[in-house]
Amino acid sequence: MCILLVLLWLCSQACLAAQDPLPSWNDGQVKQQIVTFVTKATTEAGSGYIAPDRRIAVFDNDGTLWAEQPIYFQVFFVLDQVKAQAPQHPEWKTTEPFKSALAGDLKGLAASGEQGVAQLMAATHAGMTTDEFARRVSLWASSARHPTTHRMFTEMVYQPMLELLHYLRDNGFKTYIVTGGGQDFVRAWAQAVYGVPPEQVIGSEGELKFELRDGQPVLMKQAKVALLDDGPGKPVGIERFIGRKPVFAFGNSDGDQQMLEWTASGDGAHLVGLVHHTDAAREWSYDRDSRVGKLDKAWDEAAAKGWTVVDMKQDWKQIYPSEKP
Amino acid sequence: MCILLVLLWLCSQACLAAQDPLPSWNDGQVKQQIVTFVTKATTEAGSGYIAPDRRIAVFDNDGTLWAEQPIYFQVFFVLDQVKAQAPQHPEWKTTEPFKSALAGDLKGLAASGEQGVAQLMAATHAGMTTDEFARRVSLWASSARHPTTHRMFTEMVYQPMLELLHYLRDNGFKTYIVTGGGQDFVRAWAQAVYGVPPEQVIGSEGELKFELRDGQPVLMKQAKVALLDDGPGKPVGIERFIGRKPVFAFGNSDGDQQMLEWTASGDGAHLVGLVHHTDAAREWSYDRDSRVGKLDKAWDEAAAKGWTVVDMKQDWKQIYPSEKP
Repeated sequence: MCILLVLLWLCSQACLAAQDPLPSWNDGQVKQQIVTFVTKATTEAGSGYIAPDRRIAVFDNDGTLWAEQPIYFQVFFVLDQVKAQAPQHPEWKTTEPFKSALAGDLKGLAASGEQGVAQLMAATHAGMTTDEFARRVSLWASSARHPTTHRMFTEMVYQPMLELLHYLRDNGFKTYIVTGGGQDFVRAWAQAVYGVPPEQVIGSEGELKFELRDGQPVLMKQAKVALLDDGPGKPVGIERFIGRKPVFAFGNSDGDQQMLEWTASGDGAHLVGLVHHTDAAREWSYDRDSRVGKLDKAWDEAAAKGWTVVDMKQDWKQIYPSEKP
Repeated sequence: MCILLVLLWLCSQACLAAQDPLPSWNDGQVKQQIVTFVTKATTEAGSGYIAPDRRIAVFDNDGTLWAEQPIYFQVFFVLDQVKAQAPQHPEWKTTEPFKSALAGDLKGLAASGEQGVAQLMAATHAGMTTDEFARRVSLWASSARHPTTHRMFTEMVYQPMLELLHYLRDNGFKTYIVTGGGQDFVRAWAQAVYGVPPEQVIGSEGELKFELRDGQPVLMKQAKVALLDDGPGKPVGIERFIGRKPVFAFGNSDGDQQMLEWTASGDGAHLVGLVHHTDAAREWSYDRDSRVGKLDKAWDEAAAKGWTVVDMKQDWKQIYPSEKP
């Protein structure tokens, strides 16, 4: 009899766990807000109901879906590419910004300013076909490791956000990434890592040029920027690509503020949220004074307007997928 | 007994009709090519099988999904907008290209060249919010009529192509419109008319600017062109928006040639086709010498490479949805 009761109890616990769509989120106000929003969005005839074709959810990438310290991970890709191409460019050893890039000197790089970064991007993101670029990113994503955690970069995605993406899709939401990072860079691994197909990744992008090479058409990546998908560029990218206002949006920095404002201006039900990096032990802790992922004005607006704010330390049981919860 | 046989025969005919996914297409080589392609694409383990996430089909709009004579229908929208705004611009009566636009003088308009068209586009497609523009197009699309057929423009879509879009979607294809026309213009009615949602309409587009108006975010349409989605711009638009090569593409003019080449360059199974306007009685008949929808180089390439060519007069039982077949 006693064993039967224990089995029953174990079974009921298992059932409860199976029912929880967000097991890596601690119970609390934030998790409750998300679950309530999704439940209402899918309850026909209720006040928060959202028709399936309006269920559009947008997510920033750097600092929202994966980590972004000590610098955006795409910069590590750029540095690795500069190193790989250095033997063909002996002049880089003595020319900035390549000299700093080869030395891994992030401060020296910062000193070269926007123009320096543009030079590095042109050298590593342009002058090749889209296929060749995708191959390089895939190779990098499947092998490169973070300098301090020593994890693969693609293992530094947030388990709670993976669950959130999944939960939304299970409830008929179309999940988009809207990143200030490179569109082609994120597309190369977003399907495998986030389950988000290329056509649902919107990002900063360079011009492309159609050419015939030995009779075969190719698209050549150009150095000229076609869309800077950051700040006010995010609602622009959303309108261009989707043509509808999202009803769910998550970001983590001031670069996401306009995307959240755009989503919050919808007539019907919507949820907008910020991830606040508060966990120096398990991840990083930063906000108003951070060089990367600065969260200042958007945080004030979140407080003023009652947007959802995730406290990483308090709300998340687990950070990375490979971590023990 | 005789009645029973007749009933049986009627029933079998009805069943056959119900099974035909393309009832407005005459039986023949073209219809057979399409049905064979789709059947193989959805037959697992067969040589022509295409995984569901690769089933991307792209369609030109003007002259492929709806008519385009005597001039692209968007030009009629522009002329109607100029007329509607004329009372606020008395100077237009004496200034080109507005003078010709107000007089409906297409030759005079043509004489004003690209710059004239750009001026009209700026006056009618820019300086307003995306919402306001969408409202204007919707209103126009639900009321304006073609000068010679007197049909609504949205009734001048091709019934056989509507069936083809449907047939492809029923077989797991994602159907996109890739138009040289305005992206925002086509998005305003594509869902209702073609069943294609805004995020699957790629077109020429102007820059957008995010602004706050009385604290409410809006996107203002700018006169500057962000993408000219025609000719070599079509594969560029496809790569930007979709990030994958289509496996099915249909166009009707030289402006579609690069989109068809791009699709035809795929490794796996694919079908690329052209609609040839051969029916002067039911629609229009034009190709190499036409000012609008010129079909010359793409036709030669279709012949050389064995692309599918639809002969409108021969292959289509019916042109417009409201026509008796």
